[in-house]
Amino acid sequence: MHSSYPAIAPQSAGVSPIYSASMSLIVQKYGGTSVADAERISNVARRVVETRQAGNDVVVVVSAMGQTTDDLIALATDVSSQPGGREMDMLLTAGERISMALLAMAIRDLGVEAASLTGSQAGILTDSVHGEAKITAIRGDRVREYLDDGRVVIVAGFQGVDPESRDVTTLGRGGSDATAVALAATLGADVCEIYTDVDGVFTADPRLVGTARKLDEVSYEDMLELAGAGAGVLMARSVEFARRFGIPVHVRSSFHDGPGTWIKEEAMEQTVITGVAHDTSEAKVTVHGVPDQPGIAARLFGALAAEDVNVDMIVQNVSTDGYTDISFTVPKEHMESARAAAEKLVPDLSARGVDVDPAIAKVSLVGAGMRNHPGVAADMFKVLSEHAINISMISTSAVRISCVIAADRCDEAVQSLHDYYLAEGATE
Amino acid sequence: MHSSYPAIAPQSAGVSPIYSASMSLIVQKYGGTSVADAERISNVARRVVETRQAGNDVVVVVSAMGQTTDDLIALATDVSSQPGGREMDMLLTAGERISMALLAMAIRDLGVEAASLTGSQAGILTDSVHGEAKITAIRGDRVREYLDDGRVVIVAGFQGVDPESRDVTTLGRGGSDATAVALAATLGADVCEIYTDVDGVFTADPRLVGTARKLDEVSYEDMLELAGAGAGVLMARSVEFARRFGIPVHVRSSFHDGPGTWIKEEAMEQTVITGVAHDTSEAKVTVHGVPDQPGIAARLFGALAAEDVNVDMIVQNVSTDGYTDISFTVPKEHMESARAAAEKLVPDLSARGVDVDPAIAKVSLVGAGMRNHPGVAADMFKVLSEHAINISMISTSAVRISCVIAADRCDEAVQSLHDYYLAEGATE
Repeated sequence: MHSSYPAIAPQSAGVSPIYSASMSLIVQKYGGTSVADAERISNVARRVVETRQAGNDVVVVVSAMGQTTDDLIALATDVSSQPGGREMDMLLTAGERISMALLAMAIRDLGVEAASLTGSQAGILTDSVHGEAKITAIRGDRVREYLDDGRVVIVAGFQGVDPESRDVTTLGRGGSDATAVALAATLGADVCEIYTDVDGVFTADPRLVGTARKLDEVSYEDMLELAGAGAGVLMARSVEFARRFGIPVHVRSSFHDGPGTWIKEEAMEQTVITGVAHDTSEAKVTVHGVPDQPGIAARLFGALAAEDVNVDMIVQNVSTDGYTDISFTVPKEHMESARAAAEKLVPDLSARGVDVDPAIAKVSLVGAGMRNHPGVAADMFKVLSEHAINISMISTSAVRISCVIAADRCDEAVQSLHDYYLAEGATE
Repeated sequence: MHSSYPAIAPQSAGVSPIYSASMSLIVQKYGGTSVADAERISNVARRVVETRQAGNDVVVVVSAMGQTTDDLIALATDVSSQPGGREMDMLLTAGERISMALLAMAIRDLGVEAASLTGSQAGILTDSVHGEAKITAIRGDRVREYLDDGRVVIVAGFQGVDPESRDVTTLGRGGSDATAVALAATLGADVCEIYTDVDGVFTADPRLVGTARKLDEVSYEDMLELAGAGAGVLMARSVEFARRFGIPVHVRSSFHDGPGTWIKEEAMEQTVITGVAHDTSEAKVTVHGVPDQPGIAARLFGALAAEDVNVDMIVQNVSTDGYTDISFTVPKEHMESARAAAEKLVPDLSARGVDVDPAIAKVSLVGAGMRNHPGVAADMFKVLSEHAINISMISTSAVRISCVIAADRCDEAVQSLHDYYLAEGATE
């Protein structure tokens, strides 16, 4: 999935000195690329040891090494046409087991005591939905006990245990970030650091927009909208958790020591637009000529839910002559099952037909400041129209405006919106 | 380590029909080569399903896939000069986690319900010796519960949990066999089947002796001695456990359905010699010119134990003029540390010096029947001398005679002893 990055105006104040001289508890999370091989694991170990030797308590959450998860999934596909969720979770959790044990060894090799804990050992309790479990509670006793012994504690990301069945579960996409933020909340950590292969959160995807700027700070609220609009750096579930428990999150590079982006309650200076996000991972489905009657939408989206199709945007035009079109977006990999489910309903709904289009992009403007600035939507449509970019769907929230456009116009749309709202010397 | 195989005279009676028409509980153990890739895992799944569909309850114990353990050890060596035992066990136990989940998937793919359990989940409790833990108890509740639900249960071999520290442990060499036999004892299984890449237990290593015969049965006692003398097919710890709880063990091939070798209380017909075993994995260390005084041996072997050197045979010659030589064998990989420990004691013991020799083989005759047949040792020495094979050390138990000879004479020694005692139409 392509993803873009949020933005905030440059701050006069620097990064908050949340941890400095005094003893703090820091939760650090390292993703798969940060621990992809022995050398990178040793690098992570050095960074952990530096943090520890600066006088902090450190809990580290790790993902599986690089390609491990994909390799394990390929093995499962080789032995079974339908690997069950329970066994798939048992299989995949071997990945973090390997990376966490290796990281603990590498840290001990540098003279600092360290011990690794599985999700189950760390008391990360979840519901029973294998492959996409939600964390329901964390019993951090053993983590605290090890911290009290002066050890660095390594916890497996992405995994937990269902206390009912006592089966191992995995948390699905972004699961290791969720583990880190939830652990930080449980332990009352001073900060949760998310190490990644980018420098932080940007005003737009720097691969598309040369003038995109790294944000020093972004509010939970804006980050939630940005994540939902396609900014891949952190998923909404983790941001939501951080906001609920007031945990400051520091998204930063695992390749250098410079500051990244702080996600916290309120950014210091409220701007109208925080960032431009885009998402090219979705497809558009349109059901044409639906009679404008009560209950139609309920039946359509009920049928889609029954097929486990994730629906994102939904737009229904006003009725002309008693008929309307219903359009919605779904992940590209759900497009065919969405089409099939919708087509099955065509006779029943007396609709005219179903169209699908995978060549779309969703471009979003995000900023809590737009609440107090009417006219942002109109400006956005004007900028796009000046570039002759046609808008096929529009959806808004209080702090976000999203437009669906043709995929091949995405880069130009992001660039022109960033120029207008966020470049140095821009309109704002 | 090279290994050889035990022997018993051909039986008139066939294999005991321990399980047949009626419902039995069978524990099956598959080693790393049996689950080395997806195709072999699917083969194992078919065999498990056949056993289940014949009306038996089945518990399967698996090792890690083929090279997995070696690969993980290599990774550990890359990140740490001294990986700790706790983290090494955490790392290595990922191996069985992968193979057991894949096997459970493959079995379910064939329409039979299956679930995998880690050592900890299966309640396999151990002491706290990481890397070489001993099973202290098994709480099989969850295994029984799953069996009652009609599922095939897959249990990770080689691993357990220390109930004190709640840390994961591994059982060391032969650990998966030990898991299988101990589980069979706990569950009151009718048989423990050990699947391997050989057809069973032989009268000698068939790679050395063309006329070596597969044994239909062998007693626990003879199997214990054979295991200790180098027959690698099953380790002494598992045989000892099977004997203590009276669990019949069936060692058989994972490549075909033919019967293998049954290990049980008493073989039906007692022969004098059961098999010839050999072991080329050891080295000989000799401390020369030691004063024949009390306490010398205690100090020498105390020092070796302090260096964790495993000593096998010990021979001390009778004293001539108040001085004697002490010789012992150790695993080749312990030879240098044994030499260093012994040399450090040379001044202290007023000894003349230390010699080491890695080019040795230990050849053993095993058979409980030799208790009632004096003269076996003399015959053995005669056979070796007729082949001009020099004996440098001799050690005996009630049911075994072992001779240390030059490594390059090992094949001839095994062949000639097998010809004399065990070939069709041999002396016995």
